Amino acid sequence: MARTDRLKARLPRGFQDLDAATLRAQRRMLATIREVFERYGFDPLETPAIEYTDALGKFLPDQDRPNEGVFSFQDDDEEWLSLRYDLTAPLARHVAENYDRLPKPYRTYRAGYVFRNEKPGPGRFRQFMQFDADTVGSPGVAADAEACMMAADVMEALGIKRGDYLVRVNNRKVLDGVMEAIGLGGEQNAGRRLMVLRAIDKLDRLGQDGVTLLLGPGRKDESGDFTKGAGLNDDQITTVINIIGDPATPRSSVQGDSDIVTIHNMMAQLGGSATGLEGARELQEISAFIEAAGYADRVKIDPSVVRGLEYYTGPVYEVELTFETVNEKGEKARFGSVAGGGRYDGLVERFRGEKVPATGFSIGVSRLFAALNALGRIETGGDLGPVVVLVDRDEASIANAQKMVAELRGAGIRSEMYLGGSRSFGPQMKYADRRNSPCVVIQGEDERARGVVQVKDLIEGARLSEAIESREEWRAARPAQVEVARGDLVATVRAILSRHG
Amino acid sequence: MARTDRLKARLPRGFQDLDAATLRAQRRMLATIREVFERYGFDPLETPAIEYTDALGKFLPDQDRPNEGVFSFQDDDEEWLSLRYDLTAPLARHVAENYDRLPKPYRTYRAGYVFRNEKPGPGRFRQFMQFDADTVGSPGVAADAEACMMAADVMEALGIKRGDYLVRVNNRKVLDGVMEAIGLGGEQNAGRRLMVLRAIDKLDRLGQDGVTLLLGPGRKDESGDFTKGAGLNDDQITTVINIIGDPATPRSSVQGDSDIVTIHNMMAQLGGSATGLEGARELQEISAFIEAAGYADRVKIDPSVVRGLEYYTGPVYEVELTFETVNEKGEKARFGSVAGGGRYDGLVERFRGEKVPATGFSIGVSRLFAALNALGRIETGGDLGPVVVLVDRDEASIANAQKMVAELRGAGIRSEMYLGGSRSFGPQMKYADRRNSPCVVIQGEDERARGVVQVKDLIEGARLSEAIESREEWRAARPAQVEVARGDLVATVRAILSRHG
Repeated sequence: MARTDRLKARLPRGFQDLDAATLRAQRRMLATIREVFERYGFDPLETPAIEYTDALGKFLPDQDRPNEGVFSFQDDDEEWLSLRYDLTAPLARHVAENYDRLPKPYRTYRAGYVFRNEKPGPGRFRQFMQFDADTVGSPGVAADAEACMMAADVMEALGIKRGDYLVRVNNRKVLDGVMEAIGLGGEQNAGRRLMVLRAIDKLDRLGQDGVTLLLGPGRKDESGDFTKGAGLNDDQITTVINIIGDPATPRSSVQGDSDIVTIHNMMAQLGGSATGLEGARELQEISAFIEAAGYADRVKIDPSVVRGLEYYTGPVYEVELTFETVNEKGEKARFGSVAGGGRYDGLVERFRGEKVPATGFSIGVSRLFAALNALGRIETGGDLGPVVVLVDRDEASIANAQKMVAELRGAGIRSEMYLGGSRSFGPQMKYADRRNSPCVVIQGEDERARGVVQVKDLIEGARLSEAIESREEWRAARPAQVEVARGDLVATVRAILSRHG
Repeated sequence: MARTDRLKARLPRGFQDLDAATLRAQRRMLATIREVFERYGFDPLETPAIEYTDALGKFLPDQDRPNEGVFSFQDDDEEWLSLRYDLTAPLARHVAENYDRLPKPYRTYRAGYVFRNEKPGPGRFRQFMQFDADTVGSPGVAADAEACMMAADVMEALGIKRGDYLVRVNNRKVLDGVMEAIGLGGEQNAGRRLMVLRAIDKLDRLGQDGVTLLLGPGRKDESGDFTKGAGLNDDQITTVINIIGDPATPRSSVQGDSDIVTIHNMMAQLGGSATGLEGARELQEISAFIEAAGYADRVKIDPSVVRGLEYYTGPVYEVELTFETVNEKGEKARFGSVAGGGRYDGLVERFRGEKVPATGFSIGVSRLFAALNALGRIETGGDLGPVVVLVDRDEASIANAQKMVAELRGAGIRSEMYLGGSRSFGPQMKYADRRNSPCVVIQGEDERARGVVQVKDLIEGARLSEAIESREEWRAARPAQVEVARGDLVATVRAILSRHG
């Protein structure tokens, strides 16, 4: 192939490869999450990455153009297929399709990749993993309260200390009630309601002043881009701001208002909206469950929680990490939300024509992984590589090395014969270092004749070599290298491995 | 939503949902495969499901129309993206993109879903999982020999007995040599060569007579469909048939020819082709490694192995299950190939302009899972469900049940409070049965007042109830149900769980 024709090797924008250290650490993290979900009685389920486009529906936040946000393509029979953008819409399809044979309630967890056809940015990928747990067929808010407590248990199982995270709970019915109270009820105001919800959802990022502008005339950001406002008048804005609270005072922290005060304040702003009051009463019930189960210091009612997806119909909740860390610009920052969900009683209804109550939440696996990393809770890079058996130029060397490596593997020891192109020790030792090998095994022609083998402890060797000044001294000392009988190979290697844990 | 508007809940053709029992068993199977790959010194890697279309290339077998076999779509910037159809092409992209910082050889394993835009059929899915292991940067066939031995070790680790599987090895260079020998060398014969290879690849399914027709004038199948032949003359066909062997005699089994005889016969048919003889010598080398490592009863040279993908350049190998089972039509059948791979020295070259030697293989996870299931090596359905704590109509009941369930979970016991709509015991007991719960916990108003709790062992109960004839007798006996002090709840449940392993 001519050099000019050569393909460029590159990942598409917004996609990533995951290396060994990340994958091993992530596997441990996923196992911990799964363990908590299993302990709560949830069972695994897996659905495919591809669904019919109409089965998924259009529930993504901040997507104004049709099909934006979703990767779609046509099948041979002209039907539209899409890559799933979350794990909730496919669950609704699965439940509707298998309704009669599923236990009710149906409690499942699912881990899998989802895809968003969005503009990628730092830490913002177009393929990412979610880990969900849902209870379908449970009408009472006890299921929502349980989801919040389970989310808290997941955080602690992963080593995030109490106080470093908070599960915040609100209710879409309360938000709907506020809309009614400010005269934005009814189908004709659906678009403006969405604008108000999206403005509230930005409280974390923009603060109360920014949200006030987005609720009113609109807001110009630092780059000069203008975002159209919802066009509320001052009274309407005041009602909304009163209910979502003032982020200048520590909102939704254990030092903040008690749930009783929060819900009381909520009710006062609802102008008697029946929907809103029903939502507030559900929050009271959730709060009582949380209190009784001893989770009041971890789960808290917070009227500023919105959640972006359109399909929620009742309680919504999210897990916020509250500790501060330093971002890539060197600024103090919070990780913010790492998990969220809520009640979606209407999603299965799209298929079955009758409401099927359901609630659940989704953990953003990469975001949570990054947060745990910042907390020093992720161990990467420490994994030991395989024992490497070196080879030389002698014909017999390879078959001989293969026998040794087979013996080591037979004893359950992670090991490999050097398979690169070089027959010199230098590059082979370099390779062993690169792989983070605990030790190498060397048997040259002379050793083969004498029935012995050299085993070199690379970890101990690296430590000792710091004290050695010259090449000559090194050769004389051969630190951390032992010659043993060929029959003692496995025992010798095993001893070195147990020395390094 | 009006009933007529209702969406149909259905999976797209060729896709599947996986249930809890399957997922748990598959997770155990994947862990076993991973354990073997790790023991051989391979490290995990993960690449995304989506790549640039040109990076993947067009290497799928039996795809005559452009883009057939691959799901593709355009990005916003008009560039074509595709869902990966295997895990090898993305690895080549990854290696080329990160060449300088990777250890050489680079040894990785990858498990992930791949997608084929093909006509689905029974057991033939459009999304399926592959589990691959590859060594990149190893020029010698010792790496190919190691791959074959590792594949054998995977089979045995999964419980497939020696003799029930066979790793068969061939070399594309030998096949190329045969082509040269029958005058089909050169670029101008690429199309016909592919037809010959595909004909050979069908030996298992069509037998020697069918392959002879496909090599010659063509073949009409039972449904009357005609497949065009490669148009070889009788001499050419004889050469090909002589080299691939007669499937009527047990081909590639331990009772068959020794590797020495097989390779000798191969060489005789190559008409002095340099490429062919080089391939045969590589097979001799592989055979010697296999012999020295003690794998000669598991890995065997077999000239009929082709492998469908176009990118192979040297040794090709596949794992065949040789035991017979009964298929869905009640006929005796073999599972056939469950894993396969080979050397692909040109794939990374597409990006880097220089050859980078590489070899590896891919396990078809679902096919292997089905095969293990047929062998009775997959345990499904036996997994115990959660302990279920029942609730009643009393207001205090839910908070109370929540406390009990929190206690059980705190002790590491898988458990849940019944969260369905019913407050009657009947449906709740039915739910517990459905979930395969080991026991239920009941604390009615009376028990709450007395500080006791009822624990019913459902497994023991089911056994005892078989002997009980009437409802009255049942009520009097209350088999396998004990009343214990509330403080003894956890200990009582734990005792029941340990009774049922």
